[in-house]
Amino acid sequence: MTTTELPATFLPTPLGGTLVNRVRLADPAEYAHLPALELSDRSFADLELLATGAYSPLSGFLGETDYLSVIEHLRLSDGTPWSLPITLPVTEAEAARLRGRIRLTRGGVTVGLLDTGEQYAARKSFEAREVYRTEDPAHPGVAALYAQGDVNLAGEVTLLEVPRGEFPRHHRTPAEVRAVIEARGWQSTVAFQTRNPIHRAHEYLHKVALELVDGLLLHPLVGTTNDDVPADTRMQAYEVLLEHYYPAQRTLLSTYPAAMRYAGPREAILHALSRRNYGATHFIVGRDHAGVGHYYGTYDAQEIFQNFTAGELGIRILKFEHTFYCQSCHQMVSPRTCPHDASHHLILSGTKVREKLRAGEALPPEFTRPEVADVLRRAYARQDG
Amino acid sequence: MTTTELPATFLPTPLGGTLVNRVRLADPAEYAHLPALELSDRSFADLELLATGAYSPLSGFLGETDYLSVIEHLRLSDGTPWSLPITLPVTEAEAARLRGRIRLTRGGVTVGLLDTGEQYAARKSFEAREVYRTEDPAHPGVAALYAQGDVNLAGEVTLLEVPRGEFPRHHRTPAEVRAVIEARGWQSTVAFQTRNPIHRAHEYLHKVALELVDGLLLHPLVGTTNDDVPADTRMQAYEVLLEHYYPAQRTLLSTYPAAMRYAGPREAILHALSRRNYGATHFIVGRDHAGVGHYYGTYDAQEIFQNFTAGELGIRILKFEHTFYCQSCHQMVSPRTCPHDASHHLILSGTKVREKLRAGEALPPEFTRPEVADVLRRAYARQDG
Repeated sequence: MTTTELPATFLPTPLGGTLVNRVRLADPAEYAHLPALELSDRSFADLELLATGAYSPLSGFLGETDYLSVIEHLRLSDGTPWSLPITLPVTEAEAARLRGRIRLTRGGVTVGLLDTGEQYAARKSFEAREVYRTEDPAHPGVAALYAQGDVNLAGEVTLLEVPRGEFPRHHRTPAEVRAVIEARGWQSTVAFQTRNPIHRAHEYLHKVALELVDGLLLHPLVGTTNDDVPADTRMQAYEVLLEHYYPAQRTLLSTYPAAMRYAGPREAILHALSRRNYGATHFIVGRDHAGVGHYYGTYDAQEIFQNFTAGELGIRILKFEHTFYCQSCHQMVSPRTCPHDASHHLILSGTKVREKLRAGEALPPEFTRPEVADVLRRAYARQDG
Repeated sequence: MTTTELPATFLPTPLGGTLVNRVRLADPAEYAHLPALELSDRSFADLELLATGAYSPLSGFLGETDYLSVIEHLRLSDGTPWSLPITLPVTEAEAARLRGRIRLTRGGVTVGLLDTGEQYAARKSFEAREVYRTEDPAHPGVAALYAQGDVNLAGEVTLLEVPRGEFPRHHRTPAEVRAVIEARGWQSTVAFQTRNPIHRAHEYLHKVALELVDGLLLHPLVGTTNDDVPADTRMQAYEVLLEHYYPAQRTLLSTYPAAMRYAGPREAILHALSRRNYGATHFIVGRDHAGVGHYYGTYDAQEIFQNFTAGELGIRILKFEHTFYCQSCHQMVSPRTCPHDASHHLILSGTKVREKLRAGEALPPEFTRPEVADVLRRAYARQDG
């Protein structure tokens, strides 16, 4: 009998084969004299994601060839899948003084270095149309794009020290998340991207996945968003949810430092590829992933993955339908599993949920776990108080 | 942009590449004069499964080389995965008069033909130890093995007509199930083997699978079993369950004519491979699949699949844990998804369930859907009345 022994744990290879690591402490004497660029929140997040390997194989901000290739072909110029241009936009005035090695600063403090390569003009209109599928300035991603400088600085980054952010207890680099997965012996890990509180509908997706996958990486995005529940409230809500309803040994709550771009389908790809770099083997894509307003079709962010083979992606996409509680099934369901019509379903709009929370009303336990609803209600009371 | 278009539907190739079809009407003049063998229930079921392709690549009862290879290596002599010897046992006296082409009969009526090849001695003790992992005659599969004749007749079968069994409305050959899958455009189909009524615990597995897989082939085994709920009661229970709780367009109830062998892990493999032949892409294996008593470890039937590569199997195994309702999660869970201990869980033993049904008591709706419980209660009342 031939026996195929499974390894004790399984970690996918990072995209491109190696986990990029561009974190290196440096002597101030080495950089104090260099020209400085103050980073925006988003560019600082990108610096961290690049340097810690979350964006492997990228080790720096894109040059023009890759920039155009990503926009046009959803791939780097060498063919590797990549969906969003990771660029460092500066004004023309800044560009003029930023040549060779420069310092990257936050509040004037040097946090990293950049070996600038080429400088090239951002194709904002082209980028908006292809990446965001709209030039409407009401789209927050498009608005941010148009507000940026007109020149992109390419080049390899160095991060002096990993920033541990607002939630240091939950902050882990890709290598650190991989170490946890290895320590727990998970054969498979499903990552869940979120920028919102987790209601029963999302919990249901996690639980469905956990019946078949060993571990859940609950990976809330904590960079800049335009959403209305602040990250600290969300983190508190995740903590109480996990404490009461998730098996501790199968769950890892860890922050994902990226900023939201609201690029819908394009951003879903980036979210999936970077989670592969964090060690996930599966990634959940629900309806309207990373969407905003009505710019994207409900399933666009699921269908866009058809542009790649399973081998290219290196992470399996678990595509889910809209989910909700059914009063006749007496359980969480989706149109895939429930035969009853909408009159049987408990569905609350985001607006309705916010109204109830502001009015200090309870959310139905079939919609939100009471412990989570309490956290949200207290947060809304504070906001209004 | 390269787009990988998905086909409109997806059907796995049968094991061995081609769906065996050995169904052929024949003129009585062709066979009336041949020596006859009256088939047992199990051999008649095997004849149908062989002739309709459910056991592809087998087109007849195993010869000695394959028989020994299957017992020893879990493979046919050409290397194809196969786990249970499909044999036609006869007594020595019968063997002596059964040479060349013979008739296979049920109640004296010819139902098929067999071109007998070799005759060889069954290695009952070897078969019991390797296949059933026990020689205990209290094991129903072992008991059946020891009660059989001592000689196996090899040879290719012909089935004169597909028997439609007790439930003709739900009877479908592998080709017919494949045609339904194709008509419904399912990209993926999960098959569920059952020989028992379906409680919420099993429904939960189906629903978890259906969130990710397009269609469910509910495939109850209706051949000989030693279990206590008769097939007609089970079929009625399946019908009401599907009617009230499953989306009609994603579910197909179809009978699986095989007899139970209670060979645990070995039988799980046969169940999976034959469901591939029926067109399934996924197969559910829970705890103690096809087990009886305490002959097999809880997870043996899941672990045995490690003997094969994914490509060899050609069907994905969905391995599930024990599932139950949790009073604190307020939903169906498993130890994979629930953090609470056993005191929070609603678990009823089979004995307890039978007691309640015999006493005319209601089963908790978290354990069994009320419509299913009604069918079972009425059946138990009939049995006792």
